[in-house]
Amino acid sequence: MSAFKYALLQQDTGSQARRGRITTSRGEIETPAFMPVGTSATVKGILPEALKEIGAQIVLANTYHLYLRPGHKLIQQLGGLHKFMHWDRPILTDSGGFQVFSLGDIRKITEEGAAFQSHVDGSKHMLTPELSIEIQLALGSDIVMVFDECIPHPAERSYISESTNRSARWAKRCREVLSPGSSSALFGIVQGGMELDLRKQSVEQLREIGFEGYALGGLSVGEETSLMYDMMEYSLPLLPIDHPRYVMGVGTPENLIEGVARGCDMFDCVMPTRNARNGLLFTTFGKVSIKQARYRDDERPLDPDCQCYVCQHFSRAYLRHLYVSKEVLASVLNTHHNLYYYQQLMAGIRQSLEDGTFSKFRKDFYHKREKHSLNLID
Amino acid sequence: MSAFKYALLQQDTGSQARRGRITTSRGEIETPAFMPVGTSATVKGILPEALKEIGAQIVLANTYHLYLRPGHKLIQQLGGLHKFMHWDRPILTDSGGFQVFSLGDIRKITEEGAAFQSHVDGSKHMLTPELSIEIQLALGSDIVMVFDECIPHPAERSYISESTNRSARWAKRCREVLSPGSSSALFGIVQGGMELDLRKQSVEQLREIGFEGYALGGLSVGEETSLMYDMMEYSLPLLPIDHPRYVMGVGTPENLIEGVARGCDMFDCVMPTRNARNGLLFTTFGKVSIKQARYRDDERPLDPDCQCYVCQHFSRAYLRHLYVSKEVLASVLNTHHNLYYYQQLMAGIRQSLEDGTFSKFRKDFYHKREKHSLNLID
Repeated sequence: MSAFKYALLQQDTGSQARRGRITTSRGEIETPAFMPVGTSATVKGILPEALKEIGAQIVLANTYHLYLRPGHKLIQQLGGLHKFMHWDRPILTDSGGFQVFSLGDIRKITEEGAAFQSHVDGSKHMLTPELSIEIQLALGSDIVMVFDECIPHPAERSYISESTNRSARWAKRCREVLSPGSSSALFGIVQGGMELDLRKQSVEQLREIGFEGYALGGLSVGEETSLMYDMMEYSLPLLPIDHPRYVMGVGTPENLIEGVARGCDMFDCVMPTRNARNGLLFTTFGKVSIKQARYRDDERPLDPDCQCYVCQHFSRAYLRHLYVSKEVLASVLNTHHNLYYYQQLMAGIRQSLEDGTFSKFRKDFYHKREKHSLNLID
Repeated sequence: MSAFKYALLQQDTGSQARRGRITTSRGEIETPAFMPVGTSATVKGILPEALKEIGAQIVLANTYHLYLRPGHKLIQQLGGLHKFMHWDRPILTDSGGFQVFSLGDIRKITEEGAAFQSHVDGSKHMLTPELSIEIQLALGSDIVMVFDECIPHPAERSYISESTNRSARWAKRCREVLSPGSSSALFGIVQGGMELDLRKQSVEQLREIGFEGYALGGLSVGEETSLMYDMMEYSLPLLPIDHPRYVMGVGTPENLIEGVARGCDMFDCVMPTRNARNGLLFTTFGKVSIKQARYRDDERPLDPDCQCYVCQHFSRAYLRHLYVSKEVLASVLNTHHNLYYYQQLMAGIRQSLEDGTFSKFRKDFYHKREKHSLNLID
């Protein structure tokens, strides 16, 4: 039987923000939460112990990538994904939908599922709702996502409608394979493009089926930020208040704050990890491109307000040196800092919700960045 | 005043092996010791804390690389190399000689020093004995190496003689800049190619000048292993017994054992770190190429006899997956294991010297590898 449960602990008075707690058989997740992305059974550049140390309570892994390499059956045979990657806290797996649809010309959608060619070796595959669930269960996922189509933006309304309806039928097929009360939870994914009525229809279709949690898909696909916020603002209140809400693939620190304010509980994004490897670092005063010559002899920590291992022990000059020298440690230290920043941001949000000061937290967050852009601080 | 001191604690009865201890103002180094190579102010792929955890008591850094990038003056201005790279234990710096002479056609040697072009940006530089010491002192090195020429192999006897004499004159110029009793120790480097009489002459020239320690240079430059061992066997006993002896750029686990047996106290080599990044791993039963298909579903730890973090928590299948997926963590985990293996090997050697069982240790070491090559173990 499933240990999965969501408790709404506190509702902000000045916004839709919620403080909650998800319970799984592998531990609790305090929400709002950010999930580091561990695409190929590793959050790139960071050890599981360090992930725990910075406060990550759940990571995301990718069905598409693990299916192709090393294969879900191999991982199952080796004792499951948790054991494989040495991570004993909860894992959420995406369904592979997003990746398959990102393949563009080398995939074809039918009612049955999506036929595609591997980006690794060009081999041909067919991913169906049933297979996606089978893969995620073989991996031993704690939170399984339904197989859906992530609709590109912009798209014709007729296509959005057709796709959203098909995704709903696929969601039903997923639920049939993974019943309520199973050891893994199943989340539905709201589609509907940027069309309000289709978003509403998608929510209704999913609520009709019934899931342990609900996600917004098809966002952060190139639309204006204000449009993404509008979609959250409109769609999130349509979801049941007693289930967790997850906005997929989002986002920047600003997006997280705004997502929380609109009622979102869970986020994931490659941004902190990918940016880290590209030398783009998050700080309380905004983004830093560490390769810049101005940091060459800068002995200050990256973010003097940050308590992370990197900011406690290394200078901007050292981080710049590692980056321009293409050292492995550049990725390791930058990733550690960026993920710490994200986890601290979420911890700050949660604390402010408990204290009833979220609105002040949100204002202060922007204020620090403004001072930076006015060059009042560095 | 220098805190530098070498104590010969025990002399093996069955070989030239020595158990000793070097004391520096930044801590002790139990010998025989292996020094991980931290070329550009980082031992590639491992955090300073992890280096300590696996028992490294000293690391090596490269004058040539740090001079070019980020520059020794910058590092000095930022508080020295120890602070820059967050490593508070001793650091030995090479003199830049080996790297400059590896540049081949883009360097020119005169009595004054070596003119060369940067591999980073093609800029022109002149490295002299005086500048090499100045750089190493600016970095804050605990053990400074004299600037010498690493003679290629094979080479004409006349060139070896000429070069060895010039290196001796350079060594004297180094000693004039860095006097005995300074806060940094200075080591001389024995050259002489593969010519026994020139090796002897080089030792005499260096002893005449007087150094805190003595290194054998010009080995591991492509000669037969047996010839390298012959050079060690001949040269090491010519050195004063009350000073540490360092064989530069050596080597494989076998080389370390044989170097110790011939009286060597200190080693450095990029092999454990570079091999790690190429998926070549050291184990008690020999080398493992982790990319091989045979490890695809191998749930065993890399080395079941190893107590390192990697072998305690990850399978061969996972290490192979990370490597073939080109994940950052492949370098991190492989480096950790390989350096642990090297440190454990040295710890085992030291323990056996204390116990008077070095000869048995040496036999067992080869025995385990033989069983592996006969496929008796895997």
